Amino acid sequence: MRNAPLLITYADRFAGDLRGIAQMLTGPLAGAFGGVHILPFYERIDGADAGFDPEDHTRVDARIGTWDDVADISQTHEVMADLIINHVSSDSEAFRDWLANGAASPYDGMFCTYEGVFDEGATNDELCAVYRPRPGMPFTKFFDHHGRQILLWTTFTSAQIDIDVESAQGAAYLDRVVDALANGGVTLVRLDAVGYAIKRRGTSCFMIPETYEFIADFADRCRARGMEVLVEIHGYYQSQIEVASRVDLVYDFGLPPLVLDAFFTGDTTVLRTWIDIRPTNCMTVLDTHDGIGVIDVATDVTDRAQPGLLSDERVAGLVDGISQRSGGTSGLATGAAAANLDIYQVNCAYYDALGRDDQQYLMARLLQFLLPGVPQVYYVGLLAGTNDIDLLAATGVGRDINRRYYDPHSLSEALAHPVVRRLVGLLRWRASTTIFDGTFTHLDAPPGRVALRWEAHGQVLDAELDVAAATFRMIDVDGTVIDDFAHFDDWS
Amino acid sequence: MRNAPLLITYADRFAGDLRGIAQMLTGPLAGAFGGVHILPFYERIDGADAGFDPEDHTRVDARIGTWDDVADISQTHEVMADLIINHVSSDSEAFRDWLANGAASPYDGMFCTYEGVFDEGATNDELCAVYRPRPGMPFTKFFDHHGRQILLWTTFTSAQIDIDVESAQGAAYLDRVVDALANGGVTLVRLDAVGYAIKRRGTSCFMIPETYEFIADFADRCRARGMEVLVEIHGYYQSQIEVASRVDLVYDFGLPPLVLDAFFTGDTTVLRTWIDIRPTNCMTVLDTHDGIGVIDVATDVTDRAQPGLLSDERVAGLVDGISQRSGGTSGLATGAAAANLDIYQVNCAYYDALGRDDQQYLMARLLQFLLPGVPQVYYVGLLAGTNDIDLLAATGVGRDINRRYYDPHSLSEALAHPVVRRLVGLLRWRASTTIFDGTFTHLDAPPGRVALRWEAHGQVLDAELDVAAATFRMIDVDGTVIDDFAHFDDWS
Repeated sequence: MRNAPLLITYADRFAGDLRGIAQMLTGPLAGAFGGVHILPFYERIDGADAGFDPEDHTRVDARIGTWDDVADISQTHEVMADLIINHVSSDSEAFRDWLANGAASPYDGMFCTYEGVFDEGATNDELCAVYRPRPGMPFTKFFDHHGRQILLWTTFTSAQIDIDVESAQGAAYLDRVVDALANGGVTLVRLDAVGYAIKRRGTSCFMIPETYEFIADFADRCRARGMEVLVEIHGYYQSQIEVASRVDLVYDFGLPPLVLDAFFTGDTTVLRTWIDIRPTNCMTVLDTHDGIGVIDVATDVTDRAQPGLLSDERVAGLVDGISQRSGGTSGLATGAAAANLDIYQVNCAYYDALGRDDQQYLMARLLQFLLPGVPQVYYVGLLAGTNDIDLLAATGVGRDINRRYYDPHSLSEALAHPVVRRLVGLLRWRASTTIFDGTFTHLDAPPGRVALRWEAHGQVLDAELDVAAATFRMIDVDGTVIDDFAHFDDWS
Repeated sequence: MRNAPLLITYADRFAGDLRGIAQMLTGPLAGAFGGVHILPFYERIDGADAGFDPEDHTRVDARIGTWDDVADISQTHEVMADLIINHVSSDSEAFRDWLANGAASPYDGMFCTYEGVFDEGATNDELCAVYRPRPGMPFTKFFDHHGRQILLWTTFTSAQIDIDVESAQGAAYLDRVVDALANGGVTLVRLDAVGYAIKRRGTSCFMIPETYEFIADFADRCRARGMEVLVEIHGYYQSQIEVASRVDLVYDFGLPPLVLDAFFTGDTTVLRTWIDIRPTNCMTVLDTHDGIGVIDVATDVTDRAQPGLLSDERVAGLVDGISQRSGGTSGLATGAAAANLDIYQVNCAYYDALGRDDQQYLMARLLQFLLPGVPQVYYVGLLAGTNDIDLLAATGVGRDINRRYYDPHSLSEALAHPVVRRLVGLLRWRASTTIFDGTFTHLDAPPGRVALRWEAHGQVLDAELDVAAATFRMIDVDGTVIDDFAHFDDWS
């Protein structure tokens, strides 16, 4: 994949539909992005989990376009798409058919049942061992075609039925999905929640050895169809490092909270530690459609003897700091509030998490773009969007606080905002500067600062960010000294 | 207990505190009520479930009064109190001590663990058999003092830890609570959620034979301390009838939805069937601190082959009708909306459920008061209160839509409202009319109507309610013809 920024966006919330995205990427945003991750655009985009519960993963939701529209985008930009490995909608044809017909259904075997794993029952220790990013047990009762109640694995919501990816029916289903994406012009596949795909009695059922094997095999199937694979896993930072060493590409979910921590405390120590140990086969993010990952930097939730990158006190300070800077709105959307079950994340627009401070926000983006990895920018972050309390109130879904809908008017208004113009300029600079394919060095720096260097072909780029003072100084490859984001006005 | 209306109210939301309740009962409401059910007034009234998750069930929350205040009320009115059998708060001293000290804790044994019931593990069928009025499994993970994860039974919220009432420690705890209530002047005890108290592997763990035995024994313990016992159980109507035949006193939870159904459809057929078969050792209600029970009149959720009093279509019409008449507000507070897990109830003020129609509302109350049983009136219903959208929005708890806080101003304003003045008059008439200790007859009536007769000591009271036309005609024991609620202005 190209070492150029990727946009991440919903098919419908940014520029109306797929054609709208294409027009933005080749029009107002030309040169800023090398690719785009379009969040689930399948039939249907508005289920129980905003498209992550597909009814038909092989079809494009007709309300936002067609496979031809996806192929059109892929002519000029890499297209990344979600491959939802772990589950389908409880309203999917496959699940409904199986519930109605049981063993006579062509989908018999495709779904994970409690009995399939715990055929003789599960003990306290077996149930407690199962890892889940939400409170409660990952099972939901359904009536089968005999009227008997059966428990299905539902790792996420009760409307998302886990697939038995090891079954012939599950494998055939995933093959159909891979074919559809490859035929549609997708070249990057994000394996959604793949860490939960394999269940084994007595284990955490999360990133166990068999899961790594499955990911390796499945990645081969994707590569055979010309697609690279990115693995999405939130979790304890040591696990993240372990996962990264065994797969092609991961997200750096530690970065968003650690950048905030550095700004909130004026202390870059933890951030600098992370820069030294973080995996570099990664996509860097500050924001995504999900929340800001606390789990990724905190004490191991499955073994509290394992300390996190941040102490418990400092995690509390992080969560409080986001709440304060966002005027309390993040608290409305996080944890037990607002029916949000993702207790390991804080839901908040990144621009709000930094108190809408343009200088700090652009410094955070600069830091993201300077670190090894391919930078990805969420559409709300691109537009310096703020928390959407109205959408949160309307849906009661915590994460909707950072899933704003733009219309042509609010979109062009946002693009004219000075902080957005400078961010677009910064993206164009990042996309067109080739030194990021070179060698990276994390330099020593005084407390409160971060110093980074890139070298390639005899050229050097040096940057020092004074997080405590919210200033920076960068010497570009041509010797230009940049210490003011006004510099990037020229690029916008 | 006296055959006179009971007020049901929170300690803090009606008249500020316990003294405020005493002043209302002997002042503006003198003669209207024979007793009062004060919702949980223990330490503390504002936990995770509005007092139904006590931290200390033997102490009065100091913010609303003392045991002396309870005793004062009991001088003039019967006092009914909740005895929360099934669980305590996860913040209670007992649970915290046990988590911290395990076998060394004096409370070791007091709580229901998964292992305690499913020592060798639970199968699909064993887990599916367990009845629960919410989606999801009734277990929550905690870390014990060894750092091991253990599953506790949490039938209601994860902050309410189920008590093993069969253990010595559980029994001792309940004895301490019984003593505290009896010493405090309580003469009526409502056994909260007692149907879930006994767990047995392979059963529904809900109103099993052992539960009946427990209730009988426990009722004896209460009676030995001078207290009568009321059992609170929502469920399929046949189960309700069965339960009623085996305990002293139950609620008629079928009445509230069936009265609405009759007004919405103009058809009294189902209501009249219920009048013929309903248990009469009951407390009649139209509203309580919980929602309007749909489960009590619908198809058996544990066996959909068992039809309810209302067909599925008519249940849908009931829920829709409440939503329409309440301007859509009930929908905000019910089901998956607003984090409300009580999917078997509709959350709505009864006055709003009848579209704030004074005539229909007073007719519904008249019908309630004319049926065998002791009528109980919820403080919001007494004051013809409407849905509290602000409180719902502030807490996200669906049931809070009908748990309004009154202050002295809003309380006196409500008492001056004509419909409230007539309702108070109707209550005084009901409290002072002795014929309701006599013989009840459900008479034939034309479609759309209900006709009822009471006879005692050679006196007769006849009433015919034309639900379809929203008119009524009653001939009182002294021959007075009453066909207008203005008649009760004289009593207010």
